[in-house]
Parts: sequence; structure tokens; C-alpha cells
Amino acid sequence: MNDIFTQANKAIRETTPYQAGKPIEEVERELGITNIIKLASNENPLGGSPLAIAAAKLALDNIQLYPDASYLQLRNAIAKYNNVDINMVTVGNGSENCIEFLIKTFLNPESNAIVDQHCFATIQIQIKAFGAQLRKIPSINYRHNINETIKQIDQNTKIIFIVNPNNPTGTYTTHDELVHLLNNVPTNIIVVADEAYFEYVEVDDYPRSLELIKEYPNLIISRTFSKVFGLAGLRLGYLITSTTIADLLNRARMPFNVNNCALAAGIAALGDTEFLIKTCKANKDGLSQFEAGLTKLNITYIPSVANFITIDTNKDGLTVFNQLLQKGIIVRPLVPYGLPQHLRITIGSYEQNERVLSALKELLHA
Amino acid sequence: MNDIFTQANKAIRETTPYQAGKPIEEVERELGITNIIKLASNENPLGGSPLAIAAAKLALDNIQLYPDASYLQLRNAIAKYNNVDINMVTVGNGSENCIEFLIKTFLNPESNAIVDQHCFATIQIQIKAFGAQLRKIPSINYRHNINETIKQIDQNTKIIFIVNPNNPTGTYTTHDELVHLLNNVPTNIIVVADEAYFEYVEVDDYPRSLELIKEYPNLIISRTFSKVFGLAGLRLGYLITSTTIADLLNRARMPFNVNNCALAAGIAALGDTEFLIKTCKANKDGLSQFEAGLTKLNITYIPSVANFITIDTNKDGLTVFNQLLQKGIIVRPLVPYGLPQHLRITIGSYEQNERVLSALKELLHA
Repeated sequence: MNDIFTQANKAIRETTPYQAGKPIEEVERELGITNIIKLASNENPLGGSPLAIAAAKLALDNIQLYPDASYLQLRNAIAKYNNVDINMVTVGNGSENCIEFLIKTFLNPESNAIVDQHCFATIQIQIKAFGAQLRKIPSINYRHNINETIKQIDQNTKIIFIVNPNNPTGTYTTHDELVHLLNNVPTNIIVVADEAYFEYVEVDDYPRSLELIKEYPNLIISRTFSKVFGLAGLRLGYLITSTTIADLLNRARMPFNVNNCALAAGIAALGDTEFLIKTCKANKDGLSQFEAGLTKLNITYIPSVANFITIDTNKDGLTVFNQLLQKGIIVRPLVPYGLPQHLRITIGSYEQNERVLSALKELLHA
Repeated sequence: MNDIFTQANKAIRETTPYQAGKPIEEVERELGITNIIKLASNENPLGGSPLAIAAAKLALDNIQLYPDASYLQLRNAIAKYNNVDINMVTVGNGSENCIEFLIKTFLNPESNAIVDQHCFATIQIQIKAFGAQLRKIPSINYRHNINETIKQIDQNTKIIFIVNPNNPTGTYTTHDELVHLLNNVPTNIIVVADEAYFEYVEVDDYPRSLELIKEYPNLIISRTFSKVFGLAGLRLGYLITSTTIADLLNRARMPFNVNNCALAAGIAALGDTEFLIKTCKANKDGLSQFEAGLTKLNITYIPSVANFITIDTNKDGLTVFNQLLQKGIIVRPLVPYGLPQHLRITIGSYEQNERVLSALKELLHA
């Protein structure tokens, strides 16, 4: 059998799969406890958009049919929502699928891609899985160092990823910083603004990326329905790009990469303004609750503009992670990000947040 | 913008996207006609498994949660169904996704893969999209030529695809032929038996591939929920492989490649024996109906063991395709397969089949 293992591409043989947040059932099984809360995967504590769920249910009535491979209706809805041409929209099976076919389109073993040292792991894993070189830029105060990124560009650089806000740090790159980057990047190098959490952001200097894409056709905007619309389980994300790039991506993606429930749900979700507003309001309140609670407990955290907050336990993060597990609270340890003391906590409901703060008080408040 | 186009990998720039079956809405829009039947994508005329649809609906209640990335429950159900170890099961977003991450795992620009000249287009497209060389074997009577396949193997061959039954010809490779191939292939070359339509097959000499996989660890079996279970719109397929290969595939697939509705539906579908039996019975009757009808009309067809039948129009296939469209019947022209006279027709309901036969009588019966 070993002869088959060595037949696989070296990049795949060397790939370590992404570590997902622990599912509730797994913790129940392993520890024999109940009443578990999962604040490990930045899921929406309010559930999914009710309009989207209703639309997905209807779509099940004709589930024997393949999706319309051009995704005309959903792409049209996304184009209107973002005020761009429909031919600038490519959809994927979650934004992770968008990342995958984007990398499949442009990267190869002769090229490199640049990311922040704490960049979302799936991006790092896929760059390497396609055999390309991964260049990690040391961050400054957990923020993407744009000037150093510009310095690290060479003739083999094909893509620069700016995860904004960044997961798992919760920090963001400003509009001026993104413009500075775009002004100093050769026009044949792609800059990806991965904006999975942009709806939560309330600061004024966050990039107006949809304006920038008109001026910089090498900019790609990545968005998802998994977070603010609460549809992580349906798998739906999209890219806004120049029509030239969209044409290329359409050749790289699989013809039926998005399921019919996600297609219907996506259209409905874009019209569910009530749920969007409710989600953002709840998140704002929850972030304030955590900031106040953590400050009171003297626990250091990275200021976040997203739907999670990353704390420095000042201890071994995995130990605290396991202690929280024993109390029925699943959060995310950040060892794979080179942050062995940190834990990422999704903003949950008021009660969930209180439960976490109370557990942290017991575990970390000396 | 052209500088960005040339930045894309050559294999992607040269990719022609898969041509899907025309959706009903598109024909309605273009021709302004109604009462259209689509027999173009081998979809189940009975709809989707009712048990599966009910399970998918329930899964929508917690759609804000990411899938369990290990797919433990579904893989367990598939393993039991096929009487194999759970670590031999890898699931994908439709079997097209399985094909994609299989190719991503093993192929690269230095390698080649062998297919029958009329092999399912998605496989051919993805082999080329990953930059590998595609070796097409001329078929004999629309069947895969196994001896010629063996001759074409060289030191750079990594995968041999046997689509069985083959789409779009409906022919099959026998058990003895598959064993002959496996006995004459070096053990480090993978043989993929793509069995998307296997449940429909009623002949005795069809491969017992699940038995063979114990003896030949380089054999991969690919299956789907899109056909007999009627879940094409949910996107779910799986591979049965040695545990070594499954371990590699798990590194290549994206962590959340399958949605929660598909996961729940898949488990329920495997228990929906009633729907499976009903589907196979209806298909058998429909195939007989077509065989009798076509024979009566003196229209040549390729004998099929699947849920579709491919006819030789003895005219320009695209012309007949368009004439059928005008009558509200969508079938599949086979120009991309080098079969410019042929049309592939999905077995529909009794009434749909009669309507097709009646239209063909008008168009082809001199």
C-alpha cells in the first residue's frame, strides 16, 4: 500500500487537514456531559435567517433536479445587492470552496502567495496543498503588516490574501492601508480581501472594497452566507471580481458546486434585512459584554470588530480549553496559529457569554 | 486586464467549462413555450427519496451550525450499507467533487490518466484542468476497450477511469473485464470504477466491485445519491477506497465540502429501500418502453443498463435536439463526446417517454 501513498502529489502528502471546532455531540460522547455550548466556530447564536430557511425548505420539493449550473438567479440577486455586474459574481460551496478554486486557478509549485502570520488556516493549507510557497508576514499587534507585505513581493508572487477582519485575531486592515497596498502592488498580482465578517464591522475606516474594485481590477472580494445570515450548514459563499477573473474562476469551479437549498436560501437571505440587523445588534451587545467582563477580570483580549473575541489566557491555552470543555463550553484553541496562550471565543447569546465569563473568572482570575 | 488572464495556470486558461443540461426555465425564457419536460440530466422522474427530503428539512432547523467535518454519522451509514470499514469512506459535494479531490490528490502536469473516448465529460475536463495528460482509448461498440487501456499504460500513468455503466453511452464493463484490468495494472496505478448508475444495472456479469476492493487496494469505487435516490440538487457522492487512499483524499478535500441537508438526507436515503425499489422498477419499465418504441420506429440505439438511452438520429444531432426543444422536450446532444448524430435521453415517466417517442416518430421516422 505504501507505493500508492507515494503516488500522491507531495503537497497533498504533506498536508495537515484543517482542525474544525469540536462538535457538541463529540464532547457529549467523550466527556459524558450535557448542556454544552459551542462558541468555537463563529456561528450565529440567533440561528439561520428565517426567510432563508423557508426558501431552502421549498427548494427540497424539486431536489431530484441538478442546480442550474450558471446560478443565474442567485448571481443576479448578489449583483443587485452589491450593485455590481452579474458577470463579476462567482459563487461557491462556502467561501472555502471559493478560496480553493481561486487558488486552483492561479497558484502552482512555481508561485508564491503572501498572508499574515495569523491568516485563516484554510487559506494557508490550500496554498500549500496546491504546491505553492506560503509567505507569512509577521504581524504588528496582531494586524496585517502592509508595508512588509509589499516588500516581500517578488516575480513569483501571484496572490496576496488580506483576511479582513482577520480570523482568528478579529483585527482589521483599514481603507487607507488597503489602498496603499493596491497602489504598490503590480497590477498582475491579485489582492484578495476575504470579508467573511464585514457585516459586523462598525468602524468608519473599514475598506469600501466595492468602490475600490472599480479602480483596481486585481482586487477580489470574498464574502459568505455562513456568518451574519446563519447559513454555515448550507455552504454558500461568493467572490466579486473583474469579469476577466470571473471567467477564469468559472473554468476552475465544478459545474454543480452549489446545492439547490443554498441557492434558494441565499436569494432569500439577501432580503432578510430584519435578521441581519438583529444579528448585528446582538453581536454589538455581546462584544461590549465581553469587553466589559474581560476588563473587569483583568484578562487581556485582542480588540475585535467581528463576531468573536480572542483572549490571552496567560497560561497554556490548551489546558484552559480543556478546563472549559469540562464545564461544557467549547471554544477554539489557537495552537495552529502560533498563539499557544490564546483562545478564540464566538460571541454567543447573553446567557452563553455570561457563562463563559463566569467560567473564565474561576479559571483565570487569580 | 489581459495581464491577469495570463497569470492564470495554463491548464485553467485552456479549460472549456462543462455544458450542463438546459434548465427548463431557460427553454421557457428562450422559446416562450410551456409544458416542458427535461430528460437531459438523468434525473429521477419519481422525485427525491421522501425519507431523505424529510431528514433534510429537519436539518434546516440548525443550519447555522457548520457540518461535523469528519462526517462521522453519514460515513458510518455508508460503511454499514456497503459492509466496509468506515475509514474506507470519503464523502463529497456530489461525485464530481470526489472526482476533483481525487485528481487533486494524484495528478499533476507530469502524469497522465486513461479514459474511454466517450468517458463522462467532467472527468476529462478535470484531468486537463489539473494539467495532466488525458489519454483517450477508442472504444469498441461504445464499450471501454480494456486491452488497449492496458497497452497505453506507461510510467507516468496514475489513474485509469472506468465509468460503469458509462455516461453517456449506457454500456458497461463486465466483472471479468475489470478483473482482467486489475490483474494487468501495476499496483501503484489507481483504477476508478465510477458507479453512479450501478443500482439500475440488472445484468449478472456487472462487477462485484465491493468484493474486488478487498483484493485490489488500488481500486476506487465512486457512488452518488444523485440518481437512484433523486438527490442531485443536494450534492452528495462518496468514494470507497483503501484506508491509505482515504487518508490522502481527506487531506485534499475541503473541511466542510458537504452541507448538513445532504448529510442528513444521505443517511435517510440509505434506509429508503421502498423508494429505491420503486425507482429501479420504473426505470426497467421505461427502458423496455423505449427499446420497444425505438425498435418499432427503426431508430438505432445503444443498449443501455442505466437510466438513460442514447440514440443515433442518423442526422445532425444538434438539429434534432433543437427540433425536440421546439416541442418542449429537452434531451442531451453529444457533440462534446464526438457523437454528433447521437442524443442521450433520460428515462422519464411513462407519459414523458411516450411523448418523446411520438416526437421522434414525427422527426425521424421517414
